[in-house]
Amino acid sequence: MKGKSVVSIDDVSTEDLEEIFRRTDEMLPYALGEKRNRTMEGKIMATLFFEPSTRTRMSFESAMHRLGGSVISMAEPQSSSTSKGETLADTVRMVNAYSDIVVIRHPLEGAARLASKFSTKPVINAGDGSGQHPTQTILDLYTIRRERGRIDGNRVALVGDLRYGRTVHSLILALARYDVEIFLVSPPVLALPDHIMSRVPAGVKVVDNLDDILPDLDVLYVTRIQKERFSDENEYRSVIGSYSIDEASVSKMKKDAIIMHPLPRVDEIKPEVDYTKNAKYFVQASYGVPVRMALISMILE
Amino acid sequence: MKGKSVVSIDDVSTEDLEEIFRRTDEMLPYALGEKRNRTMEGKIMATLFFEPSTRTRMSFESAMHRLGGSVISMAEPQSSSTSKGETLADTVRMVNAYSDIVVIRHPLEGAARLASKFSTKPVINAGDGSGQHPTQTILDLYTIRRERGRIDGNRVALVGDLRYGRTVHSLILALARYDVEIFLVSPPVLALPDHIMSRVPAGVKVVDNLDDILPDLDVLYVTRIQKERFSDENEYRSVIGSYSIDEASVSKMKKDAIIMHPLPRVDEIKPEVDYTKNAKYFVQASYGVPVRMALISMILE
Amino acid sequence: MKGKSVVSIDDVSTEDLEEIFRRTDEMLPYALGEKRNRTMEGKIMATLFFEPSTRTRMSFESAMHRLGGSVISMAEPQSSSTSKGETLADTVRMVNAYSDIVVIRHPLEGAARLASKFSTKPVINAGDGSGQHPTQTILDLYTIRRERGRIDGNRVALVGDLRYGRTVHSLILALARYDVEIFLVSPPVLALPDHIMSRVPAGVKVVDNLDDILPDLDVLYVTRIQKERFSDENEYRSVIGSYSIDEASVSKMKKDAIIMHPLPRVDEIKPEVDYTKNAKYFVQASYGVPVRMALISMILE
Repeated sequence: MKGKSVVSIDDVSTEDLEEIFRRTDEMLPYALGEKRNRTMEGKIMATLFFEPSTRTRMSFESAMHRLGGSVISMAEPQSSSTSKGETLADTVRMVNAYSDIVVIRHPLEGAARLASKFSTKPVINAGDGSGQHPTQTILDLYTIRRERGRIDGNRVALVGDLRYGRTVHSLILALARYDVEIFLVSPPVLALPDHIMSRVPAGVKVVDNLDDILPDLDVLYVTRIQKERFSDENEYRSVIGSYSIDEASVSKMKKDAIIMHPLPRVDEIKPEVDYTKNAKYFVQASYGVPVRMALISMILE
Repeated sequence: MKGKSVVSIDDVSTEDLEEIFRRTDEMLPYALGEKRNRTMEGKIMATLFFEPSTRTRMSFESAMHRLGGSVISMAEPQSSSTSKGETLADTVRMVNAYSDIVVIRHPLEGAARLASKFSTKPVINAGDGSGQHPTQTILDLYTIRRERGRIDGNRVALVGDLRYGRTVHSLILALARYDVEIFLVSPPVLALPDHIMSRVPAGVKVVDNLDDILPDLDVLYVTRIQKERFSDENEYRSVIGSYSIDEASVSKMKKDAIIMHPLPRVDEIKPEVDYTKNAKYFVQASYGVPVRMALISMILE
Repeated sequence: MKGKSVVSIDDVSTEDLEEIFRRTDEMLPYALGEKRNRTMEGKIMATLFFEPSTRTRMSFESAMHRLGGSVISMAEPQSSSTSKGETLADTVRMVNAYSDIVVIRHPLEGAARLASKFSTKPVINAGDGSGQHPTQTILDLYTIRRERGRIDGNRVALVGDLRYGRTVHSLILALARYDVEIFLVSPPVLALPDHIMSRVPAGVKVVDNLDDILPDLDVLYVTRIQKERFSDENEYRSVIGSYSIDEASVSKMKKDAIIMHPLPRVDEIKPEVDYTKNAKYFVQASYGVPVRMALISMILE
């Protein structure tokens, strides 16, 4: 991975993934602040956020700091050179002069790929519109591997907004590399779009009723259903009700099944679920730091 | 204090205060950048500012940096996960995954206490609405102790907006632990509210005319009177005039009396006062860093 | 330079400039992250940006991090104490309590000078209205020296907005200290203002047609022409067309002539020019970090 940009999960081979997972295991005590790591001392990460994402930005910044490195940050797009008419290519070249690695978040799909074309330093895509968010996918895979022992052999249901959810699209395509059984559960208006559906393995099953498959699942991956996707509030209310996970849902699941969510969550998972052993979404979020530490150190070392 | 949250000054015992003061004395040369300290190397402070407060945020960040630690910061509440409907509990849990200690500022009273309930890491309240701002109180007490030799035995006047001033409420309750004489001086519309008045010791005196007590004071603590508190500008003008400290006021004070102010100040203290030996408000502000260094190191060590 | 503020390029003697250039040469491998430097460990730079300038702020922050130091930043002026009515003098004193050096950017000319008067710590002006931006001037001079071997003996054309361009004003006055031939090329409405013109050496030539002098130039310094300066779009279009540098312009220039621009650029230099050996504007931007490293280390050591 040395010197490479990571724009799409397709840029990361399955062998690379294995190496990232191995390194992430090693990074855990450093990510928790239990051990000190100074390998990135003197190195600078630039976080270029053309749209806000506090969670993702903080996770990357925490990773760089835990490695002993420094961070410079642009999180006010309206106030940047962009507002003076500068092209993305020029902004990236500028930031290249100030840093060793660039993390970019942009509202437009393809922006991160464009940035990586002009950048003389490695670029990590932290989400570009409806495009990719590869480090989220890597931490999702790592969570399954760590919490379930391995990725192969799991029955995974992806639930919620499969239409607009960038996270889910990447994850489905990445899971397709493994020997997993995939179930898709969503309201009809939020079904997986055709251009992704055409790339998923034949074995993927579209399921109407989540309850029917709950007892068989190893991994329940829930995503946020955004109110803005619905034309009227009543429709949203009825949908969110039937796709929401509560204690009753958990009671139907296997004891060692895990529940994941990319966060933030709103009503899709009830707070009562937080206290069950199956709830792994906060652990999943915490893996964001060691996964990004592993990635940064492989790219910059 | 190890591992403890500090939400209210009531969370800090008088013994803890003594230990904080002792440590603050030790921290002074490090706070001034004269000596280097790396005890917090590899540790991360998250500053979660749901309302802006540049002064408080910078003071905390400076403290963490002077200890060799790192900082990740959220200072754009409108752009955070909160705007996607995330609860404060979830935001705090997220930040727990990225940091070792959380500093929170919130417009709503009680928010810091709620955050500390869900947080797996220590939380420091950096001001919650009309609630508490304990580190301001600790640095106020430290300033009196350092500049006057000790806290006991002082005659302290609190002047200005005693009604809305969070800082003053905390300070009065904290001073009540010591053997001090307290005077309250404010325009009637900005008098101390009953719920605080009922908790102050019997000896506290409400004074109409500041000039009457100026010659007897050891500590003159002035607070900002906000124009917004008055229905018309003329009323504000007349009040600010009679509660404003100038050279004439200083000339009536004891030579070794000190003038404090939590800053920012507007018209309450004339610039001419800055050049008197009694003016201690900038020194007071500077103690914010070593006090917070002491607190952080006691909590995280 | 130890302990000194840098508000105007006039604060920096020609001997100081030579020392800054020498140090900048030394800083290059550290600025590139090839070598580690910890001389500023434990020191804190405060960046006070009362108007946004991502480029300048990131360049200063990168410089401080490359030296092993820390940064605290105020880049949300509307949310600062200023909005509560605090004076600039008080804001600077506050920041003095939290840092060892203050970098200030302000929309009003003279603000940095005022700040330096009240500051107990060195202040670097990072641009104040139509006033000065001395570190930009120093890096411009360094670029000429490094890319052309020396400053003396060059023929330098300054092209574009010579009226409002703060950068150009400072640079002209600084170049006047050296033995250079200066050409000024601008649309009439954007000509150099009289108060600067009266201070430039007699030999400076105002030129109507850039093409006439292109073959003679050693340094072509292009500045951004802002659309807002024109009352109608058509006038802007016609002007921008005749002052824009393309491959045809480059083909008329000497092989070893260099093209500079303070960036961001919009239409003044066509992207096709980026790939010529004469294009030095990205290199110029990259020198911002080692130049600022040299300056900070000379002031704080």
